[in-house]
Amino acid sequence: MNFHTRKWVKPEDLNPNGTLFGGSLLKWIDEEAVIYAIVQLDNPKVVTKLISEINFVSSARQGDIIELGITATHFGRTSITLTCEVRNMITRKSILTIDRLVFVNVDPQGNPHPHGKTAISYIKDRFPNVEKLG
Amino acid sequence: MNFHTRKWVKPEDLNPNGTLFGGSLLKWIDEEAVIYAIVQLDNPKVVTKLISEINFVSSARQGDIIELGITATHFGRTSITLTCEVRNMITRKSILTIDRLVFVNVDPQGNPHPHGKTAISYIKDRFPNVEKLG
Amino acid sequence: MNFHTRKWVKPEDLNPNGTLFGGSLLKWIDEEAVIYAIVQLDNPKVVTKLISEINFVSSARQGDIIELGITATHFGRTSITLTCEVRNMITRKSILTIDRLVFVNVDPQGNPHPHGKTAISYIKDRFPNVEKLG
Amino acid sequence: MNFHTRKWVKPEDLNPNGTLFGGSLLKWIDEEAVIYAIVQLDNPKVVTKLISEINFVSSARQGDIIELGITATHFGRTSITLTCEVRNMITRKSILTIDRLVFVNVDPQGNPHPHGKTAISYIKDRFPNVEKLG
Amino acid sequence: MNFHTRKWVKPEDLNPNGTLFGGSLLKWIDEEAVIYAIVQLDNPKVVTKLISEINFVSSARQGDIIELGITATHFGRTSITLTCEVRNMITRKSILTIDRLVFVNVDPQGNPHPHGKTAISYIKDRFPNVEKLG
Amino acid sequence: MNFHTRKWVKPEDLNPNGTLFGGSLLKWIDEEAVIYAIVQLDNPKVVTKLISEINFVSSARQGDIIELGITATHFGRTSITLTCEVRNMITRKSILTIDRLVFVNVDPQGNPHPHGKTAISYIKDRFPNVEKLG
Repeated sequence: MNFHTRKWVKPEDLNPNGTLFGGSLLKWIDEEAVIYAIVQLDNPKVVTKLISEINFVSSARQGDIIELGITATHFGRTSITLTCEVRNMITRKSILTIDRLVFVNVDPQGNPHPHGKTAISYIKDRFPNVEKLG
Repeated sequence: MNFHTRKWVKPEDLNPNGTLFGGSLLKWIDEEAVIYAIVQLDNPKVVTKLISEINFVSSARQGDIIELGITATHFGRTSITLTCEVRNMITRKSILTIDRLVFVNVDPQGNPHPHGKTAISYIKDRFPNVEKLG
Repeated sequence: MNFHTRKWVKPEDLNPNGTLFGGSLLKWIDEEAVIYAIVQLDNPKVVTKLISEINFVSSARQGDIIELGITATHFGRTSITLTCEVRNMITRKSILTIDRLVFVNVDPQGNPHPHGKTAISYIKDRFPNVEKLG
Repeated sequence: MNFHTRKWVKPEDLNPNGTLFGGSLLKWIDEEAVIYAIVQLDNPKVVTKLISEINFVSSARQGDIIELGITATHFGRTSITLTCEVRNMITRKSILTIDRLVFVNVDPQGNPHPHGKTAISYIKDRFPNVEKLG
Repeated sequence: MNFHTRKWVKPEDLNPNGTLFGGSLLKWIDEEAVIYAIVQLDNPKVVTKLISEINFVSSARQGDIIELGITATHFGRTSITLTCEVRNMITRKSILTIDRLVFVNVDPQGNPHPHGKTAISYIKDRFPNVEKLG
Repeated sequence: MNFHTRKWVKPEDLNPNGTLFGGSLLKWIDEEAVIYAIVQLDNPKVVTKLISEINFVSSARQGDIIELGITATHFGRTSITLTCEVRNMITRKSILTIDRLVFVNVDPQGNPHPHGKTAISYIKDRFPNVEKLG
């Protein structure tokens, strides 16, 4: 799994107990997963269908730097299944894991549409001379 | 299930496809569920432990009014399990359901601590002359 | 008066003195009142005309859970008048009261338009089998 | 009345009908009024006590530039009363007026405390060689 | 240089070290500069072309009141160059200076377009009976 | 240069002309650069000293996915100099470049403090079995 987006936990991200608010973390993850799905399916119209089993392993504190990792685990006919881990970037300690995030590829009318993908693709295969995108 | 908090879907809540951004919705749900757990466990220190099976049933659009419903389904020794539904307040159409949200009651040091609750309580039982709180 | 929307006062809602920022509270109230007016007038196009006499009775602190209550007090020909109270959800202590919030029902061009309502309606009267909405 | 703070109405500030969300505007006004009160009373601890009669005269749209004007109308023993107008910066058309915003000067314990001021002061009177502050 | 917009540094604006987050400050400056450029060029379509040499002179803390000053230093054929200072409103201590912010006047298609301005204009010259706008 | 953090341009990030608001972009860059500096200097207390020459090469639109790249170009005694590029993640078209962002390593009292680093370090050198961090 490659980790891309990083966040610096600021006061605006905290719950009243002074740790990272779970809702803020879920918002960050949803954006990162959508981006991953859009890039892999090569279609800006994907919709979240299901998120399963979110385990909050440890918490993060103000000033922590965290990073989000996503990877595809299954390509369906119209869907893609991702898995996710969030960890502390310095200590590598796990903060949260999500077994499965399922996104559906839709056409402009919002109906499920076959995406034709069967494996993780790399932007370098579409654009020469650019590095791998996990 | 009683529905309490309402939201008016504004431009700041939308994804680039013009529907409600899933991440914003998850952030609202996490806050509503924490509030429910704090009130039921009568303790401001509760932590999210697990969220299981989030089903995105339908989407919401700009101007929609949505409402969030939470109810407790199980009281463990140190935990509480909730279930959640979000729906369109006018049409009552379901937008999202979550089977189980598990919160843990913790002591000031952050360790799991027995909460001593076994059933949904009402604020009216604690404060005379106030109405039921679901 | 029924209380619906709840908020958990987080660091992002505080003023520099460490209490709930009044501007954040006013923003929450305006959204709650608009939602109430839209539901009662059965029209998504309502505009705030006047807010009168906002009394800040007590303050709220980080970690407090507050709830917003709104009820209609008068139905004009094209307007509706609401009254509002915000209180601490646990202690029931009043935080803020507003005598009158006046909203006007407008047509698609933005001009005042008779709404034909004369009393608080319940969504259950429009949709069978749903509970009362105050 | 002098107008100081300006805002550029962006998509994040809109209600679902595409005009400036009243709640956002109230949040901006509360901050501007608190700043004015703090500067005049020369004390960072002031609390909002009452806001009376907010008239929404016209609306603002995406891309509009608006400006906020505040001036003191009365100095009490522990309070200060302000009046406010928000207008379109280019056309000078009034958007909102507030008759009275009352702030109370408090001591570190949060109790009302005499401020000793009887008239609008200018920062230039405190710091030589700086321009008037209305 | 005239100073207009003021900000009250709130918890939501802080970095994890408890001082004003530089990114929030840059966001405020960009909005203030765009407003200045729009007003001077009398065109709502201006784009930021270059920002040069931002010096962070001192920091701001929670509760500080800061003010933003902008003035035009050069009028090109399709561009305008501004300079900026941010300072503590009470102590007048400088927080940040920016040598040059260059904005380009564009037509509805987004192409550079001559603006025909050669000097700072005042809204009072366009609208009689209104005060100077720097 | 490695690109890490990605953003999906949402309505909340737009200026009134419908393109990415420059101020939002600057806020994202400042956070990404601070994270890079903290990781390289192995110290959570770094302050932004200077940002030089920001070139806005092209704009981004709603729905675009952009990515932020940072790399160190110079290690001073108490400072670190970074360079930055923001580009469209799909098309690889450049959106913004910044020549130099200078951060200073400070001690707990906020005074400049030697950091002892002379080259880009990798987290894998500090924590065995973890991948390179650029």
